[in-house]
Amino acid sequence: MEATPIKYGRGAAEEVGWEVRRLRMNRVMLVSDPGVIEAGITGRIVELIEAEGVEVEVWDRSRVEPTADSLQAAADFARDGEFDGFVAVGGGTSIDTAKVSDLIATHGGEIMDYVNAPVGDGKKPPSPLKPLLAVPTTAGTGAEATTVAILDIPEQKVKTGISHQYLRPDRGLVDPLLTMSMPPEVTSSCGLDVVCHAAESYLSKPYDARPKPDSPDDRPPYQGANPIADMWSGKALEFGGKYLRRAVKDGGDVEARGAMMLGASLAGVGFGSAGVHIPHACAYPIAGLKHEWQPPGYPDDHPFVPHGWSVIVTAPAAFRFTYDAMPERHDEVAELLAGEKIEKPDENTLPEILISLMKDIGAPSGVRELGYTEDDIDALVEGAMKQQRLLVGSPKDVTEEDLANILRESMENWR
Amino acid sequence: MEATPIKYGRGAAEEVGWEVRRLRMNRVMLVSDPGVIEAGITGRIVELIEAEGVEVEVWDRSRVEPTADSLQAAADFARDGEFDGFVAVGGGTSIDTAKVSDLIATHGGEIMDYVNAPVGDGKKPPSPLKPLLAVPTTAGTGAEATTVAILDIPEQKVKTGISHQYLRPDRGLVDPLLTMSMPPEVTSSCGLDVVCHAAESYLSKPYDARPKPDSPDDRPPYQGANPIADMWSGKALEFGGKYLRRAVKDGGDVEARGAMMLGASLAGVGFGSAGVHIPHACAYPIAGLKHEWQPPGYPDDHPFVPHGWSVIVTAPAAFRFTYDAMPERHDEVAELLAGEKIEKPDENTLPEILISLMKDIGAPSGVRELGYTEDDIDALVEGAMKQQRLLVGSPKDVTEEDLANILRESMENWR
Ligand SMILES: [Fe+2]
Ligand SMILES: [Fe+2]
Repeated sequence: MEATPIKYGRGAAEEVGWEVRRLRMNRVMLVSDPGVIEAGITGRIVELIEAEGVEVEVWDRSRVEPTADSLQAAADFARDGEFDGFVAVGGGTSIDTAKVSDLIATHGGEIMDYVNAPVGDGKKPPSPLKPLLAVPTTAGTGAEATTVAILDIPEQKVKTGISHQYLRPDRGLVDPLLTMSMPPEVTSSCGLDVVCHAAESYLSKPYDARPKPDSPDDRPPYQGANPIADMWSGKALEFGGKYLRRAVKDGGDVEARGAMMLGASLAGVGFGSAGVHIPHACAYPIAGLKHEWQPPGYPDDHPFVPHGWSVIVTAPAAFRFTYDAMPERHDEVAELLAGEKIEKPDENTLPEILISLMKDIGAPSGVRELGYTEDDIDALVEGAMKQQRLLVGSPKDVTEEDLANILRESMENWR
Repeated sequence: MEATPIKYGRGAAEEVGWEVRRLRMNRVMLVSDPGVIEAGITGRIVELIEAEGVEVEVWDRSRVEPTADSLQAAADFARDGEFDGFVAVGGGTSIDTAKVSDLIATHGGEIMDYVNAPVGDGKKPPSPLKPLLAVPTTAGTGAEATTVAILDIPEQKVKTGISHQYLRPDRGLVDPLLTMSMPPEVTSSCGLDVVCHAAESYLSKPYDARPKPDSPDDRPPYQGANPIADMWSGKALEFGGKYLRRAVKDGGDVEARGAMMLGASLAGVGFGSAGVHIPHACAYPIAGLKHEWQPPGYPDDHPFVPHGWSVIVTAPAAFRFTYDAMPERHDEVAELLAGEKIEKPDENTLPEILISLMKDIGAPSGVRELGYTEDDIDALVEGAMKQQRLLVGSPKDVTEEDLANILRESMENWR
């Protein structure tokens, strides 16, 4: 049970100056991205921080899907800038960029030294980093609440990450007023990411069904389903079922925006403790293998698959596959999303609830729509199998054949 | 949303050595109390810490209800001992004693400097304290998860405390195996404390119905009911309704012990954020005014009213009084405790559920059984009115007359 302290509420971001001062920052690297800057959010935050007599330098080049190279550029800037603290204003990317910049500025080295083995060297930071304050402007990744940073390695056609407890931000300011300008497609993808974080962690292999490590040092961050993570994930599922359609339909619905934003943080804590598995493992190659699809509603400067959509497309088939490992818990997830008791649920109940949500909020219908055909299944399976760190969390053992079946079923979730 | 990181599970306490090392302690003051030492728990913990090459000195004089004097003795020991970290092994008292010892050892001064105004000077610690690891052995106060330390000021016949975020332990190890020897009466009182923490915070004045402070500095730790606290408190209510009777009836029921222990921590986080109000405000004078009652099941060296029992006795009448301020939320608390939907609930539903629980687990029937009569009501009201810090959290304004009525109704909850 470990959670980033979050200050939540309308107007919470207005207290950013006070929070920066409380974290004893005097010279701040503020990481943001062009869209958020254009929306005027970043400028307002900079103003509020400077009003406290704190120096701010803005790094405005967070890419939507960061690579080792784009992160290294930010990290070099961080190392040379003699900052004593970091603020991230943006989506998961800006927050992840700030985590990595802080890591390199504090402990030196190259990014690949710290990237999870076997892709990188998996080196652990020896001591805590400089303070990091996260101000999310989307309601998705929950990056403000997690201990990982995700990046793309285009040469190896793989997405991976750096994960260590010291990457956890010191504090998050979660203010629904900051997401009001998010386009419906972004709200849809981010919201479905939240739903998957919550559903996968609720449906991961229970913490007490896993082998005890020889030393607490060897205990992975993802512990499997447990009563505390259930609480976080359960509440996020409830919010997703109740508010996601509303937030997509009417961007000005502050109540729905607020619930989805809080839900993103709650789910972040939940999956940070329990872990995600099959849909997220499949999402890595789905987002990493081809870069051909230009998502509607996103900046049109480079084609890519938005994270939430890359995850949700295999979720219905994945949960149909895992159903018999823990039927009651699948039924519970279905009921939390539906917001009501369901009579005689079976292995199709949860998949159908997810599909109906996807349809209602304009998600892609499946893996085919993202540019893949049956011919790509072997390559997708190979990519997903690399995510053993995640797949061990599946409540049921997963073979290559199982993944191929899941991907095949996920070509079209509906027609 | 701010919570002490908790490691929960059977055998979690066996990892105490590793945790002490991780918190970089080399010389530890370990605070415990005679009962826990006698049960052999403290000795085992000391062994595990020393096995990591860490020096340990045991302070074994935590009183069941600490006073400024008893705390000052521990604090003097802490200041002279050149410790670089603190471990508490015991109930709320040992944990609170460790918090205060750490405070004085880190920042000097006298205890009364830091005690909440107007009783003390309300001074704030200027920077974080030395690391503190809490290993609770009861399932009640949730002290491992809170930012307060409670103490008795016998000269002023008042209970008060020190509260500041820096008093929050760095980590808690919550191990159900440590509560197995707790006598049924202690389990009853501690468990009812948990239920009251959860119910009072669920039923406190909502965070967005309170005035916004001029500066975040002035925001009190108790924020009122909010969606995150609801999550913690709601789960604790569910556990209390489902497991408390079982834990009292059969001390060897590990599942029930575990749920109540976890419930205590969850409720601690919940009330640490939302706050408690009328029953806790009344509990202070009930425990502080007379010291005549010798509680069954507790050490017979001094008469006193165990905290949980001092709180629960006024809870039924308090919630009957607050009902009309938020009827639906009272009904939700009733349903969470009952574990089922209730048809046509009214203002007596929650009080009756509480009374039936109290009867089943041997709680005192009311304020009279604790040694008070109608003649004491004025003095009790006066004592409760001193707890304005808590009473502002009531969902409905509380006058002296209201408190007198609640106390009168609470003389006997049943006959
Ligand atoms: Fe995700
Ligand atoms: Fe209490």
